[in-house]
Amino acid sequence: MKNLSSLAILSLLALTLPLAIASDPSPLQDFCIGVNNPSNALFVNGKFCKDPKLSGLDKSRSTESSPVGSNVTTVNVDQIPGLNTLGISLVRIDYGVNGQNPPHTHPRATEILLVQEGTLLVGFFSSSPDNRLFNKTLNKGDVFVFPEGLIHFQVNIGKQPAVALAALNSQNPGVIVISNTLFWSSPPIDPNVLAKSFQLDPKVIMDLQKKIG
Amino acid sequence: MKNLSSLAILSLLALTLPLAIASDPSPLQDFCIGVNNPSNALFVNGKFCKDPKLSGLDKSRSTESSPVGSNVTTVNVDQIPGLNTLGISLVRIDYGVNGQNPPHTHPRATEILLVQEGTLLVGFFSSSPDNRLFNKTLNKGDVFVFPEGLIHFQVNIGKQPAVALAALNSQNPGVIVISNTLFWSSPPIDPNVLAKSFQLDPKVIMDLQKKIG
Amino acid sequence: MKNLSSLAILSLLALTLPLAIASDPSPLQDFCIGVNNPSNALFVNGKFCKDPKLSGLDKSRSTESSPVGSNVTTVNVDQIPGLNTLGISLVRIDYGVNGQNPPHTHPRATEILLVQEGTLLVGFFSSSPDNRLFNKTLNKGDVFVFPEGLIHFQVNIGKQPAVALAALNSQNPGVIVISNTLFWSSPPIDPNVLAKSFQLDPKVIMDLQKKIG
Amino acid sequence: MKNLSSLAILSLLALTLPLAIASDPSPLQDFCIGVNNPSNALFVNGKFCKDPKLSGLDKSRSTESSPVGSNVTTVNVDQIPGLNTLGISLVRIDYGVNGQNPPHTHPRATEILLVQEGTLLVGFFSSSPDNRLFNKTLNKGDVFVFPEGLIHFQVNIGKQPAVALAALNSQNPGVIVISNTLFWSSPPIDPNVLAKSFQLDPKVIMDLQKKIG
Amino acid sequence: MKNLSSLAILSLLALTLPLAIASDPSPLQDFCIGVNNPSNALFVNGKFCKDPKLSGLDKSRSTESSPVGSNVTTVNVDQIPGLNTLGISLVRIDYGVNGQNPPHTHPRATEILLVQEGTLLVGFFSSSPDNRLFNKTLNKGDVFVFPEGLIHFQVNIGKQPAVALAALNSQNPGVIVISNTLFWSSPPIDPNVLAKSFQLDPKVIMDLQKKIG
Amino acid sequence: MKNLSSLAILSLLALTLPLAIASDPSPLQDFCIGVNNPSNALFVNGKFCKDPKLSGLDKSRSTESSPVGSNVTTVNVDQIPGLNTLGISLVRIDYGVNGQNPPHTHPRATEILLVQEGTLLVGFFSSSPDNRLFNKTLNKGDVFVFPEGLIHFQVNIGKQPAVALAALNSQNPGVIVISNTLFWSSPPIDPNVLAKSFQLDPKVIMDLQKKIG
Repeated sequence: MKNLSSLAILSLLALTLPLAIASDPSPLQDFCIGVNNPSNALFVNGKFCKDPKLSGLDKSRSTESSPVGSNVTTVNVDQIPGLNTLGISLVRIDYGVNGQNPPHTHPRATEILLVQEGTLLVGFFSSSPDNRLFNKTLNKGDVFVFPEGLIHFQVNIGKQPAVALAALNSQNPGVIVISNTLFWSSPPIDPNVLAKSFQLDPKVIMDLQKKIG
Repeated sequence: MKNLSSLAILSLLALTLPLAIASDPSPLQDFCIGVNNPSNALFVNGKFCKDPKLSGLDKSRSTESSPVGSNVTTVNVDQIPGLNTLGISLVRIDYGVNGQNPPHTHPRATEILLVQEGTLLVGFFSSSPDNRLFNKTLNKGDVFVFPEGLIHFQVNIGKQPAVALAALNSQNPGVIVISNTLFWSSPPIDPNVLAKSFQLDPKVIMDLQKKIG
Repeated sequence: MKNLSSLAILSLLALTLPLAIASDPSPLQDFCIGVNNPSNALFVNGKFCKDPKLSGLDKSRSTESSPVGSNVTTVNVDQIPGLNTLGISLVRIDYGVNGQNPPHTHPRATEILLVQEGTLLVGFFSSSPDNRLFNKTLNKGDVFVFPEGLIHFQVNIGKQPAVALAALNSQNPGVIVISNTLFWSSPPIDPNVLAKSFQLDPKVIMDLQKKIG
Repeated sequence: MKNLSSLAILSLLALTLPLAIASDPSPLQDFCIGVNNPSNALFVNGKFCKDPKLSGLDKSRSTESSPVGSNVTTVNVDQIPGLNTLGISLVRIDYGVNGQNPPHTHPRATEILLVQEGTLLVGFFSSSPDNRLFNKTLNKGDVFVFPEGLIHFQVNIGKQPAVALAALNSQNPGVIVISNTLFWSSPPIDPNVLAKSFQLDPKVIMDLQKKIG
Repeated sequence: MKNLSSLAILSLLALTLPLAIASDPSPLQDFCIGVNNPSNALFVNGKFCKDPKLSGLDKSRSTESSPVGSNVTTVNVDQIPGLNTLGISLVRIDYGVNGQNPPHTHPRATEILLVQEGTLLVGFFSSSPDNRLFNKTLNKGDVFVFPEGLIHFQVNIGKQPAVALAALNSQNPGVIVISNTLFWSSPPIDPNVLAKSFQLDPKVIMDLQKKIG
Repeated sequence: MKNLSSLAILSLLALTLPLAIASDPSPLQDFCIGVNNPSNALFVNGKFCKDPKLSGLDKSRSTESSPVGSNVTTVNVDQIPGLNTLGISLVRIDYGVNGQNPPHTHPRATEILLVQEGTLLVGFFSSSPDNRLFNKTLNKGDVFVFPEGLIHFQVNIGKQPAVALAALNSQNPGVIVISNTLFWSSPPIDPNVLAKSFQLDPKVIMDLQKKIG
């Protein structure tokens, strides 16, 4: 009996290997569901499709609890396992009045953004040594592109809440919010490092680090 | 004068080569504008950014002139040169009442779709020999995924016009509308080939080919 | 004893992980066998090679049971586990007199085809809106290319059976036979969807769906 | 007139740029012809297809002028411009009696080989420090795989000439024939380097270098 | 004469196209020199090799003019055209006493660093929401890895100048120095955007922006 | 109890699957540790970082036991599990007086080399049929590039031991030492095959094969 169940585990392992070790730059199967329990794992071979659907992206999100007045709702492989290996994801961004999606990067994806409601000031910076800022004011229906790995931001400069939808070309693009990462990491970074980098008095950095991200 | 202009052409060619022959799986520069005239080409080296912005994607499109009652508005590298090398694009799809985006494939991209207005019946087929149909009814705010290269479709099954927004993980995903390609190609395919493939009377195929796609 | 065997399973799992999560665009090891039983799995680290050989591709296959008069023999990672991660596969295609390999796509590969025996009419369609048909008559020794994801077909227009050999640049290219997928999927698609798409009377579609693919 | 023709050149250059700088891991267009003259270049945008066909691969090649008794006929992007960006190619190999395709590597591709006529001894070596030889005797209809970048060879061990067909997953896989590269390069390598590497008397190396590859 | 030179230009263009539109995930040729003048361009087909060599990376660089006390010497495709399409580059980093390589990211590459002289405190941050700091003290001969796109830094915590050598897996990894990009971009970003993002008094930001990066 | 532990194994398997089947050309997570025991495997989801550090690369290695007078110390995913999926690695090469790193290839990577101490004669060969040798003498601080998959070598031509550091753009580039692979493989290759390939008397080959690599 024990052997039997071990065999089940092993054959399940064997089933997944042919995909697991794949390295083609495109998918190696029609779709490949990231599974959350072993029974599903038996269907990784493409003969079964877990629901590639998610609901509620039309609902507005509260931005009140956010210190920067925005709320980002992600739709990536964590929300839709069916996205696994397919290299794309979505986000919905709600902006309160004067809210912003603060300067951040996506280490593994380019982003294309569509304004659904309101007016946004958006921008990205080219890499050093140029550090050029490319600024645009976007209104409802405008589309803008943030290249892979570059720092970018959006600010609601309208009198009403704003909404944007963005797509990214990775199933797990990741996000690095510059302020949270530098000043509110765990553990915190030595304030003298940031003080020199930003040419600020270490006390300013320490005050900053005391705040909650 | 002639030499001068030839030199200009050549140096412009030389400038583009370091990027042109790139083969990294990710971009080789912050951004890289697809140019429409030679003077711009001088700026391909990333020191200058052509406007990565497009407007009007919020405007509804007429579906009346479409035999299938839909209208697809693409936002790819042809509309935004700034998308070049960044591997992502968008489409807006308007559906009239009873309209459909007929069965089609994207040869080079996965698609993620968000319903903006109305109710859609969507689906895709797994590859042969399974040929499984995965059907879903989507309402406003629902998200669905169509894996790379698989045949898929959307049908407006609501009482009102519908709108969807979709993102694809290529700057030029391409689209193959099955019916247009098979029955209304130029030149037309030998009807006997389709007759045997679809097990139809060649006359049915010939009638079909006489219609305008 | 049980723990021991569990440890074996786990270490075998651990062994496979470094490859499993690889994302280089090229292989991460000399070769990497997709295993069919746990004992082999212990050798995934490249110290052992499962037989990368297959026989009998010279034998002609019967096309009689095929409604379209052809028989496709695949040589991919399912037949040769040693192909795993190596990004290539083969097919042998036998065509009866008047037989065809009906319009289909490979969602994940380009195909290069060599005529071994007989005379074939081959073609592919460019993507919409062009939908251009590129037609060629091929004789023994002719080579032709079908680009990734485009609809293509081959028809035996000779007086004898024909044979072709084709290579595809994926270990699992997949195949979507248009007629089978659209008309004989399980479950079947709503005939009204196809009727509108193909501008056919729904009855024609329903008759079609009654036939066996 | 001159300006006109310069403009033609430039617009042709501009046309090619959006593709030229692409870095997606899959093609960025249906097909993309490597052009040999400017008039064709105007059609690189996918609206025109240069003949993706080549003939005569069924014809046997003489192996008499070859010191190793074999003749390799390549079908890559140099012979079929239509292969450009599509990542696949073919070779036909003719072997005289006792002929061999000597130890070589392909720096950019995996190879899958099918024996068309005769009997071959084939093999490849795993990488150092294992340096394991994987040997097989192949008969007509047998298929074998040579992983990317590994040294491999085929020897005709039958009593008749042999023929093999092989596919490689690059449009330009390259070939490095070990003996030709090491002993008959231009300029020749210092014989003392090879003497130490192979632990041979430098005189043996110098005699070897005097022969014609 | 004009035609002749135009032909030269065109054939040179033709030569470059087969590579220019390549999209394989690996190089499409042995090497492919990024050229700086048209005469070299004639040799892009791999029949000629521009010097893939650079000298002087052993020389220490002055860190005195640097506000952060470091000096980064890059060896990428701009310094060695022969690196083109080969996906790798180097940097040498000199650190004065108390010097640092301030928090930065590489949008297109992972970095592996080796300490050549001295003692460094190095670290990187995982992406949000974790924002975990991974800190290490490195001595001469220690190696550390900074994953693609993540913010990282090095600080000289020894009593002597320090030197590190780092490799990155792109021919043009790019660098984004966070402080320079956010506070000293051209044009400057609206200080109120940063004030909210960093929860600082706008005056602090404005003072910061007045300094020279 | 047994079921419990089986569940643990299975959920651990499930955790790893979402990454395991990934096929993006870039990492799918910040970092992804190749684990050596099951408890660690539970942390593959990026919430935990195994030490991406290694020490001692500054120490010189003895070259006395090497028949070719060199010693290669690798720093790849086997030494630093944290390199997993990140596509880069390092090697330190020590050369005795008259020592060499004999002709070899890396099947999956390009190499960039920096001379740390001494004077090296380095070179690589372009692919057949050119077989061109590109030779350079490198001194301390010189950098040179060896393109992916090409045969290359380094020889210490100075009067003192030499040291080089090299980076390769794969986490597991592999190495094929030509002499070891051809003459000292296990099992050995039929000497007549090499005799014909190298146009040597089989006795010379057999003598060679008797030596220890």
